[in-house]
Amino acid sequence: MDMQQVDPKIIARGKEFFASISGEAPSVFNKGFWTGKVMDWAMKHEDFKVQLFRFVDVLPYLNTSESLQRHIDEYFAGEGAGEIPPVLKWGAEKSGLLGGLAAKAMGKIIRTNIEGMAKQFIIGQNTKEAVKSLNKLRKDGFTFTVDFLGEATVSEIEADEYMNGYLEVLDALAAEQRSWKALGTSGDLDWEHAPKVNVSVKPSAFYSQSKAVDVEGTVAGMLKRIRPIYKKIVAMGGAMCIDMEQLKYKEATIELFKRLRADPEFRHWPHLSVVLQAYLKSVDDDLAGLIAWSRAEKLPFGLRLVKGAYWDFETVIAMQSGWPVPVWTNKAESDIAFERCSKVILENSDLVYYQCASHNIRSISAVMEYARALGVSEDRYEFQVLFGMAEPVRKGLKNVAGRVRLYCPYGELLPGMAYLVRRLLENTANESFLRQGFADNVDAEKLLENPEATLKRALACSPRTHPAPREAPGGLPPFRNDPNIDFTIKAARDSFVAAIATVRSKAGATYPLFIGGRDVTTSDTIASYNPADPDEILGHVCQAGTGEVDDAIAAAERAFPAWRDTAPEDRAAVLLKAAAICRARIFELSAIQVLEVGKQWDQAYHDVTEAIDFLEYYAREMIRLGKPRRMGNAPGELNHLFYQPKGIAAVIAPWNFPLAISLGMVSAAIVTGNPVIYKPASISSIIGHGMVDIFRQAGLPDGVFNFCPGRSRVMGDYLVEHPKISVIAFTGSVEVGLRIQEKAAVVRPGQEQCKRVIAEMGGKNAIIVDDDADLDEAVLHVMYSAFGFQGQKCSACSRVIVVEPIYERFIERLVEAAKSVKIGPSEDPSNYMGPVADLSQQRNVREYIEIARKEGRILVEREVPDKGCYAPLTIVEGIEPHHRIAQEEIFGPVLAVMKAKDFDQAIAIANSTRFALTGGVFSRSPRHLEKAKKEFRVGNLYLNRNNTGALVYRQPFGGFKMSGVGSKAGGPDYLLQFMDPRCVTENTMRRGFAPIAADDEWVC
Amino acid sequence: MDMQQVDPKIIARGKEFFASISGEAPSVFNKGFWTGKVMDWAMKHEDFKVQLFRFVDVLPYLNTSESLQRHIDEYFAGEGAGEIPPVLKWGAEKSGLLGGLAAKAMGKIIRTNIEGMAKQFIIGQNTKEAVKSLNKLRKDGFTFTVDFLGEATVSEIEADEYMNGYLEVLDALAAEQRSWKALGTSGDLDWEHAPKVNVSVKPSAFYSQSKAVDVEGTVAGMLKRIRPIYKKIVAMGGAMCIDMEQLKYKEATIELFKRLRADPEFRHWPHLSVVLQAYLKSVDDDLAGLIAWSRAEKLPFGLRLVKGAYWDFETVIAMQSGWPVPVWTNKAESDIAFERCSKVILENSDLVYYQCASHNIRSISAVMEYARALGVSEDRYEFQVLFGMAEPVRKGLKNVAGRVRLYCPYGELLPGMAYLVRRLLENTANESFLRQGFADNVDAEKLLENPEATLKRALACSPRTHPAPREAPGGLPPFRNDPNIDFTIKAARDSFVAAIATVRSKAGATYPLFIGGRDVTTSDTIASYNPADPDEILGHVCQAGTGEVDDAIAAAERAFPAWRDTAPEDRAAVLLKAAAICRARIFELSAIQVLEVGKQWDQAYHDVTEAIDFLEYYAREMIRLGKPRRMGNAPGELNHLFYQPKGIAAVIAPWNFPLAISLGMVSAAIVTGNPVIYKPASISSIIGHGMVDIFRQAGLPDGVFNFCPGRSRVMGDYLVEHPKISVIAFTGSVEVGLRIQEKAAVVRPGQEQCKRVIAEMGGKNAIIVDDDADLDEAVLHVMYSAFGFQGQKCSACSRVIVVEPIYERFIERLVEAAKSVKIGPSEDPSNYMGPVADLSQQRNVREYIEIARKEGRILVEREVPDKGCYAPLTIVEGIEPHHRIAQEEIFGPVLAVMKAKDFDQAIAIANSTRFALTGGVFSRSPRHLEKAKKEFRVGNLYLNRNNTGALVYRQPFGGFKMSGVGSKAGGPDYLLQFMDPRCVTENTMRRGFAPIAADDEWVC
Repeated sequence: MDMQQVDPKIIARGKEFFASISGEAPSVFNKGFWTGKVMDWAMKHEDFKVQLFRFVDVLPYLNTSESLQRHIDEYFAGEGAGEIPPVLKWGAEKSGLLGGLAAKAMGKIIRTNIEGMAKQFIIGQNTKEAVKSLNKLRKDGFTFTVDFLGEATVSEIEADEYMNGYLEVLDALAAEQRSWKALGTSGDLDWEHAPKVNVSVKPSAFYSQSKAVDVEGTVAGMLKRIRPIYKKIVAMGGAMCIDMEQLKYKEATIELFKRLRADPEFRHWPHLSVVLQAYLKSVDDDLAGLIAWSRAEKLPFGLRLVKGAYWDFETVIAMQSGWPVPVWTNKAESDIAFERCSKVILENSDLVYYQCASHNIRSISAVMEYARALGVSEDRYEFQVLFGMAEPVRKGLKNVAGRVRLYCPYGELLPGMAYLVRRLLENTANESFLRQGFADNVDAEKLLENPEATLKRALACSPRTHPAPREAPGGLPPFRNDPNIDFTIKAARDSFVAAIATVRSKAGATYPLFIGGRDVTTSDTIASYNPADPDEILGHVCQAGTGEVDDAIAAAERAFPAWRDTAPEDRAAVLLKAAAICRARIFELSAIQVLEVGKQWDQAYHDVTEAIDFLEYYAREMIRLGKPRRMGNAPGELNHLFYQPKGIAAVIAPWNFPLAISLGMVSAAIVTGNPVIYKPASISSIIGHGMVDIFRQAGLPDGVFNFCPGRSRVMGDYLVEHPKISVIAFTGSVEVGLRIQEKAAVVRPGQEQCKRVIAEMGGKNAIIVDDDADLDEAVLHVMYSAFGFQGQKCSACSRVIVVEPIYERFIERLVEAAKSVKIGPSEDPSNYMGPVADLSQQRNVREYIEIARKEGRILVEREVPDKGCYAPLTIVEGIEPHHRIAQEEIFGPVLAVMKAKDFDQAIAIANSTRFALTGGVFSRSPRHLEKAKKEFRVGNLYLNRNNTGALVYRQPFGGFKMSGVGSKAGGPDYLLQFMDPRCVTENTMRRGFAPIAADDEWVC
Repeated sequence: MDMQQVDPKIIARGKEFFASISGEAPSVFNKGFWTGKVMDWAMKHEDFKVQLFRFVDVLPYLNTSESLQRHIDEYFAGEGAGEIPPVLKWGAEKSGLLGGLAAKAMGKIIRTNIEGMAKQFIIGQNTKEAVKSLNKLRKDGFTFTVDFLGEATVSEIEADEYMNGYLEVLDALAAEQRSWKALGTSGDLDWEHAPKVNVSVKPSAFYSQSKAVDVEGTVAGMLKRIRPIYKKIVAMGGAMCIDMEQLKYKEATIELFKRLRADPEFRHWPHLSVVLQAYLKSVDDDLAGLIAWSRAEKLPFGLRLVKGAYWDFETVIAMQSGWPVPVWTNKAESDIAFERCSKVILENSDLVYYQCASHNIRSISAVMEYARALGVSEDRYEFQVLFGMAEPVRKGLKNVAGRVRLYCPYGELLPGMAYLVRRLLENTANESFLRQGFADNVDAEKLLENPEATLKRALACSPRTHPAPREAPGGLPPFRNDPNIDFTIKAARDSFVAAIATVRSKAGATYPLFIGGRDVTTSDTIASYNPADPDEILGHVCQAGTGEVDDAIAAAERAFPAWRDTAPEDRAAVLLKAAAICRARIFELSAIQVLEVGKQWDQAYHDVTEAIDFLEYYAREMIRLGKPRRMGNAPGELNHLFYQPKGIAAVIAPWNFPLAISLGMVSAAIVTGNPVIYKPASISSIIGHGMVDIFRQAGLPDGVFNFCPGRSRVMGDYLVEHPKISVIAFTGSVEVGLRIQEKAAVVRPGQEQCKRVIAEMGGKNAIIVDDDADLDEAVLHVMYSAFGFQGQKCSACSRVIVVEPIYERFIERLVEAAKSVKIGPSEDPSNYMGPVADLSQQRNVREYIEIARKEGRILVEREVPDKGCYAPLTIVEGIEPHHRIAQEEIFGPVLAVMKAKDFDQAIAIANSTRFALTGGVFSRSPRHLEKAKKEFRVGNLYLNRNNTGALVYRQPFGGFKMSGVGSKAGGPDYLLQFMDPRCVTENTMRRGFAPIAADDEWVC
């Protein structure tokens, strides 16, 4: 095929296409109606567009007129000052109600208008309506594929319900199809080759425990409920297409498709399709893989090619996670990929039945021309468009190709609104073909241009990325969080398995102390075991007594002067080296955590990336703070403010973030110039020992880092009270934290410096679920916040406060979600929850569960394995603020459910403990979110997301009240705590002569 | 006189002048010699110039070849890396010594060259040499005025010596003049009208206690020693000119001149002159005043008009002090003023004998033309130039006018070097006429241009001021320190007297507590008295018991929520209002301090400006910190870091900076949103009560500021331990500070928040005097640092550590200086030192003096008045680091002198106490200064200036070790201590749709 020749033909065909639909526009842009007016307004006003889409999203939750009215005000009228834009009230105006129009009535009209808008895109709210609409479509000469809209599936019972919904509609369609005449033929198949009944399924909806890290489990879970549907479809002679969703499901979805297609029971039936998204940079490889598989298996199949509907999501997630953006960042690149893949598909039309799904007339024309050029028979490809969208395109396609299938969602308005948002986005995006072609009236010439040319032009105008400007001290690249692990990459999963095996192979070693650059063994040791199997001893850790503490402090004292005088940049360089070492050993450092403290893979990996982040961030912070600041610009005087280290630091670390928090505190002390006596938690001493090698390799001078595990009752107070200790960085329980504070406040003989205590202590963190919360999100995030790593995070959610109107609905979904998760050893990534950290933790949590049983009503108490330090995942309701379960930190998988009559009361309850660490709010009320920002007084508040996993720099972490004495870790004020400020003032005038500096204030 | 006509004549005459000296240049620019080469290099390399001038300044102190060599290295070779610029070694090269040249020999050559340079400007180092040179000058046809160079006069004995030096030279000249033939005549007077012997005197050198605030005392002091000189001059038929020095002496100098001129004994003698400086903006008024005085008194006089030699100094001091710059900021303006004043003088030639002192040929030509136009007789004006400068000008003048007097300094090289620096500056400044005319070879046309035209051109090119760019939060003007008081302004002095009278008239009132916006009286009161006269009761101050503390805390608790929620800008606005109120009442607020705690005028005034600074600075700081900071730029996520107040603050204040420190701590707490319970020190409770009115007038809501004086033993611990107190800001002794720290660390029932203690505690501050220190500065600054406000500052110098080689010389001058200062009531501004704060302080200091007597040798123990809380100004030597006098804070006028064998040991001694607050170093060794910056570990280190009087923002104040628990007051980290950081993270993505903000990182 000679592209030089084909391109003009594509353009010519496109022009014909345009000519054939001349003057027509999609109904959604028709400004004679409310929808068209609002769309027009939204395209012109970005702020309104954001508010509109968000309002559409929350609308189904607004069950009372009061709530509806309030949200309209909050979304559109601004802070009382603004006016609701007239365009939104247009329906009311038209109906003559304006002026004396009651707010209530106007709210109703707006709701009706928006629901009407949704109905443009949805064929019906139930099976009956759907079937009726489909009948009509077929009469108009269109075929369909049916998609059942649903909320996110957060539990297995919801997955079952979803499956049953499909089975129900299939029964109805099976009955109905008998009455349908085939299109374009007298036979039984549409166009002589396509089954009349065609269904699309979103696989993630069929299994609540899908995980990128657990491909096999995910495929099995999906297959369990999709197979019965497909079986019924095959039985009725229908076709099915497996939709493609977010990238994280891609691998499982393709695998699911292959298994179903190759299933011995269905191998004979060719009418199974899968979807590829041209916006993915991986689309070519995936396409080639499918074709090769098909050819090898001799299994023809259907392939729907789309551009892709999750572009914003994939891009945002990738950028938030520090991953390469997986989608083409220029729209033209997707268009190019679409044409390129179309060509490949058509070249393989012997195996692949092509379902070209695009509203882009250039893309469509290209497919047509390729098919013609390649001589592809018409029964090997069809065109698909979305119901309710791009009516001129579907009309034109019918005119030209005849074979047009409409993608027809049906279902209730609640999930329907979410679907509507996606459609509105697609219609209003600046680069949308529909918008350009039918709203902005861009020239046909330009619309039909070869996307290669479009791309070239776009790249000439602007650079590829648009990084926000940020300071980068010391010539380093600006700080970035180390990327999350991307489990869609197989190598990442394999590395984990290998690393766990390696770590296990080293079990049983003895870990010495490390003092003044030398390993020091002691006769007293403690065994560290795998909490999933306490019989598995991972190692024996030497224990410091007071003598070893003295030795370590003496070593630190010797190391202090030289380290203090080491330039900040050079101290920072050691941290950067340590970060590189951690990065190189990230799987090993994660794997130890999986075995020693029972962390899930992702959590363990995140602990290491957080440790790396601390190293990288504090290195930069020190370079920033290390530069003396000139204060004032008076001539003849130079004032420089700078910082010096306080002295020897004791770092007393917890086991729950065994590397991140330890390395965070230790690196902060070290980079600011303070030698460290590091006392890890017993439970995680082997991980703690890992820092010895890291700092040794990084070239830290002897004595600056001293590894000093020990029994708290033997050497804890001794270390804290030691007169040579100047800083104590502690993370742990409030009881220990306050004890340290008291002891450290007493100045002892020989003590030079008042001790600075930086203590991060407990939390009793609450998430508030407001009555307009998006429950799809709230349920999953509450689960994760409460039970991730068994709830053993100071940030973990241990109270969920639910506003009354949504209480039943939320709790029902939450309980089912809690019943659906898998519990077992953390080294198996299919498990959602593992054992708690050790036997004493297990005992403690179990005691609290008994208290919970007395104080409230247990809603969930999951069975757990007998062996290992498991504590049941527990949800208890009926908890009041005065209950112990509402006040005391449990540090385990126990979630208290509390009911609030309204949002204000929810905030009051949330604030009613002596802690103030983290908190969360799920709400779509702008005013409530604002209120929470001000009045939900915790160190880290999270709006509409989980309340754990604070990232260094982006979410500086730490609380107040009894949650913390000190400033936020990973934040801009943290390092200051390890240093004393100094100011040097120099009078530069001598004999009346002062050199004038460029930054002096001066006359001229 | 028609300027239109005169100006061309001036230019024509100037051209003739140039023509007459064509090809000649001042010897200092002759590149055939070392000086000319070095000057050329200095003009091209600003850094070298600075180093050269500084080196010239220190040279006379470099008594050993080792010291000489080290300084050459430090000044010119940089940090070991650089090379001494060849130009400096030129003499050596010429003498063929380069290559194998020993450093020692090269040092010698450099010294010889620089001394040679000095000798170009100085007629001799002693009377004999001087007389010899003068003989020669007269033979060449020049007259002279002799100036005796001296070090700064720091004591009365030095003033005596200086006077004696003059008397000695006068004896010699008296003897010599008999052999001189008069110039230009056969009579006894030069040019028929001028005495042959002419002497110039710098009045400040004749009195060590000169003070702008004490004009009468200063004039009397100067007169005492100048009168005998003048008497001798009159007796020998000579003339005298009273030189004008820095602006601060101007008023006293003019007064001195008038008194001497009008003295009945000398009224008949017209040969007394005074100097005016054309660079002063006040020159026209001063000239008019003198002429009016002369006319009224019928006393003709001589007037030397100069441009002025302290331009850099006056400008720098004004900018550092926040005063309007008193000198013209554009060189052309001085030239214009010179011509303008010349005209006025010549118009009054009947009274004024004009001594035109300028090297500027335009100015000279203008004077000549004016004189001609006005028909001024030649015996009514003469020309003066500096010896060794501008030889072509003096030659030209002699050719044209004949009457040329050379200003001839003589004296030792030590003061000579300081003089040399001034001359080098004058020769090398960019705008210097000499440089432009004879080094840069600027066009004669331009050099002779009317300065009005020059000015116009200059203003067109650049704006008048060049403020360094600085952030200004909230639209406020950038922070500036409130100006120091300028006692050269009479109104300032008068206001002080009036304010003290007003305050005194109110003595005896009762001062209630102030709780929740209401005055609260108690039966228990304490009387506050004037420490200069304990019988003078200033008022009775109510004392809080625990009940009142409870009430105050309850009031604060009620006020907290609303104040916390008040916008940072609005809280800041209250501080700004309070600042304005303080500014309006500044004399009253200062005067109370003079009477209640015995502060000197300037110190009291500075306390109020510092209070104002705290208010202004913290207001801006809060606006800065009040703006939530976005952390990171990931799309779909908004992280905002911000701060909230901690809760109720207890502010426990000292009496020594009774308004500044109190208002500093209180305003920091308040502006960050914390209500305050303020406990002033008993000694300064009336000043403390002043804050009640300030905050009431500023509109602070009730309960936010509670004035709660009380007896520490009754309510001190109770306040500190109170569970509702969240922050304690304390300034005072280390004993009390540590007690507070211990008590505050214990969490008590009902306590929500761990208490934050911000404690500024004691100091045992040292100043190091290096062997190359400029003693003129060191002695005065050590005096001020040690004895200002009777040494009752935590920052005060209580140890002076002197490096051995300079020990005797420094101590001798210091002791004499200490013996010279006046001691008495602070309300008399002529007194240098007043009483200590109360009787118990007096007792305490006297006890320490007894300890000092035992541990060392008392060098000075001044007599003090019997009545009043006076403690003797005491200097004790022989103190070793282990002595109590070297370790314990005395808080009074007791200075320990310690000897160090070298600079390293001096630093070790300085660091050898448990305190680390302030420190000072006097040194001109760049390497030692660098070393001190690093290793002299104190909170505030001052190089080559006094170590008290830290300014808000420019010198953030506070120490570490046992000097402080907390961050620097008046610095950028201070407010953070009163707040807890919070971070709110919002997930902005809904349904896969995230609004992209302008500062997001994003693809495009």
